[in-house]
Amino acid sequence: MTDRPAPGMRHRSMRDHNLGAVLGEVARRGTISRAGLAVATGLTKSTVSSLVGELVEARLLVAEGRTGEGERGRPGIGLGLDGGYVAGLGCEIGARRLAVRVVDLRRRTRVQLERVGPNHRSPAAVFAELAALAAEAEQRAHAQGLTLVGAGLAVPGLLDHARRRLVAAPNLGWRDVPLDPHLAALPPRAGLPVAVDNEANLAALGELRLGAGNGQPSFLVVTGEVGIGAGLVVGSGLYSGADGFAGELGHVVVVPGGAPCACGGRGCLETVAGLPALLRAAGLDPEGGLAPLLAALDRPVADPAGEAARSAVDGAAAALALALTAAVHLLAPGLIVLGGTLAALGPVLVPRLDDALAAQVGALRGSAPPVTTSALGTDAAVLGAALGVLDAVVADPVRILPT
Amino acid sequence: MTDRPAPGMRHRSMRDHNLGAVLGEVARRGTISRAGLAVATGLTKSTVSSLVGELVEARLLVAEGRTGEGERGRPGIGLGLDGGYVAGLGCEIGARRLAVRVVDLRRRTRVQLERVGPNHRSPAAVFAELAALAAEAEQRAHAQGLTLVGAGLAVPGLLDHARRRLVAAPNLGWRDVPLDPHLAALPPRAGLPVAVDNEANLAALGELRLGAGNGQPSFLVVTGEVGIGAGLVVGSGLYSGADGFAGELGHVVVVPGGAPCACGGRGCLETVAGLPALLRAAGLDPEGGLAPLLAALDRPVADPAGEAARSAVDGAAAALALALTAAVHLLAPGLIVLGGTLAALGPVLVPRLDDALAAQVGALRGSAPPVTTSALGTDAAVLGAALGVLDAVVADPVRILPT
Repeated sequence: MTDRPAPGMRHRSMRDHNLGAVLGEVARRGTISRAGLAVATGLTKSTVSSLVGELVEARLLVAEGRTGEGERGRPGIGLGLDGGYVAGLGCEIGARRLAVRVVDLRRRTRVQLERVGPNHRSPAAVFAELAALAAEAEQRAHAQGLTLVGAGLAVPGLLDHARRRLVAAPNLGWRDVPLDPHLAALPPRAGLPVAVDNEANLAALGELRLGAGNGQPSFLVVTGEVGIGAGLVVGSGLYSGADGFAGELGHVVVVPGGAPCACGGRGCLETVAGLPALLRAAGLDPEGGLAPLLAALDRPVADPAGEAARSAVDGAAAALALALTAAVHLLAPGLIVLGGTLAALGPVLVPRLDDALAAQVGALRGSAPPVTTSALGTDAAVLGAALGVLDAVVADPVRILPT
Repeated sequence: MTDRPAPGMRHRSMRDHNLGAVLGEVARRGTISRAGLAVATGLTKSTVSSLVGELVEARLLVAEGRTGEGERGRPGIGLGLDGGYVAGLGCEIGARRLAVRVVDLRRRTRVQLERVGPNHRSPAAVFAELAALAAEAEQRAHAQGLTLVGAGLAVPGLLDHARRRLVAAPNLGWRDVPLDPHLAALPPRAGLPVAVDNEANLAALGELRLGAGNGQPSFLVVTGEVGIGAGLVVGSGLYSGADGFAGELGHVVVVPGGAPCACGGRGCLETVAGLPALLRAAGLDPEGGLAPLLAALDRPVADPAGEAARSAVDGAAAALALALTAAVHLLAPGLIVLGGTLAALGPVLVPRLDDALAAQVGALRGSAPPVTTSALGTDAAVLGAALGVLDAVVADPVRILPT
């Protein structure tokens, strides 16, 4: 993930480091007393008290109730993250929607806005609309007493993080787009760098923190909308390859020499299991969204529309199983989480994928990784974008403290 | 990689750490003076001198010539790794051969033995033969004044490192084999733990240190013999997934619903591009080795045997391109290195793979990663197994110092 740099070339002092250690400990524990913090961090109680004072003043920590872990049986005063002030802004540009979300330091969603409509048009027009949506979200956050400390953006494409350019986003029709000029108008304020990452990577971060991946040492999140992407978490961190271009599950070939794909290749998974392809195969309007497909799947046996829908989903499941076989053999995730529109098809897809993976990889590996669906639905990426901002604050709170 | 644990539960002292820092600096630089070491490590000159004294006494470092970097224009006395004493033993169990290799601290191969023949038989018989080969290598190493400080083993299968078991090696017909009982007889002495890893991972390590991957930030090594495997290096480290089961390129599906594979799946890359499959498709004896195929490829146009061989290799190249497309999209390596028997087919395979990858992934990514062949041939893995032993010594020399 493109991380927000610390201001200037400031060398990180011991105090700065300790502020992060204290805040991180509270974030991990939920509630903890000053005495508990001293034990956990190895700092003296007076140092902890001074650091806690700064963090409370900055409204990153707040006293809350009492814990049972005080000295000599006296309950200590509990400290928790302050959910009432600092918040992160998550943004997402999807092929067919824009989404923004404000999440507070306790990871509660406080504002959630969406604009549905195709984004296969000029980057300037799309980013202007996103900025307007984000400005509205910021106003609503302010009205709740929140202050945005940073923004993250999920995009459906390949990023050159060093050059801060979107290399290619086939489902937007974008190629080699410089990001910073377009991002300058995003809240919380002009010129503050925005952390940009691939939507599947940020969906994986969302799942890691608040979804099906929570507590899992390794999992693969498959996101589906027009395109299909994948984000891999290994050892509680995101794996995105040497250049950040890993996880492009949607372009694994499932039909050798098959139909042309927006990426320039042929027979990619997206050409069979991407939503428009799936709708087309079911005899439905490829731009008509998921609802008609779900309705058709519910029609009785022998109903032609129902049969067409079921056959299309069977084809997509078989293609997805082939691509996931490659992902299991190459990446070895411990769990597979279906997200986005694929999550909505979970009841149909999961048993088919479980069977196909058991047959194809189960014998070699002893078992296939289980397949599950995301509870975050299509919102894992925008949530992950906001959570990335908050993770950065917890890791290094000095960046937002008054100097 | 399963690493050799430090003896006992000894806490690593500052001195131990500094010994590793000094030795590591010499390993990186090749030759360096004591003064240069002091600058590079931040240690005082007297500390450096004392550490260097210990390392010279242990025959890990040796004085060699003079460097130009002494103080006030006086050339300093150069220090380099001592290639005359400490050596690592690399071993490999392939589907059709056993190999052992002794490599000194300067990464020169000093002993190299091979026994060709199928290993699809009992683990006990194969390991006994390997131990005999390794004992002979150790004798030859001793005759050159070398002492083996540890052993590494490359196997063509999936490893459970925590339980030290070989989970599955389809091309050996082995399943769930406990390793330590079989490894007890390996030099340098009974009971010393042997670092065991997948052959493709160790081939990647060999390429990283001494082969095509040297200096590359990220590359994928594809190894081919009976099976096909892949080892990925990212940021100069091996990526092997959360459980070490990543990189099984040979079982990416290239023919949906195709021929049964030894792994239990169908249509895997190995069923088309593994050596026996390739020979069979060319109308040759599947157990007859690569030479007849290479000879047939040299026959003139219109010669039926030549045509059959070329058509078989075309089919293997197309299948390999499909699997590599998945690997490029999922792992995003910066370079692809063909090793093992695939390296011998490099002149035929490389142009076909370059073309296929350019067509399939080039448009999305701007360019496809270049494909090259290994100069280490079939020996990258056994070399990597020996180099892994030496890497561990350089990182923590105390493990082999007299206590």
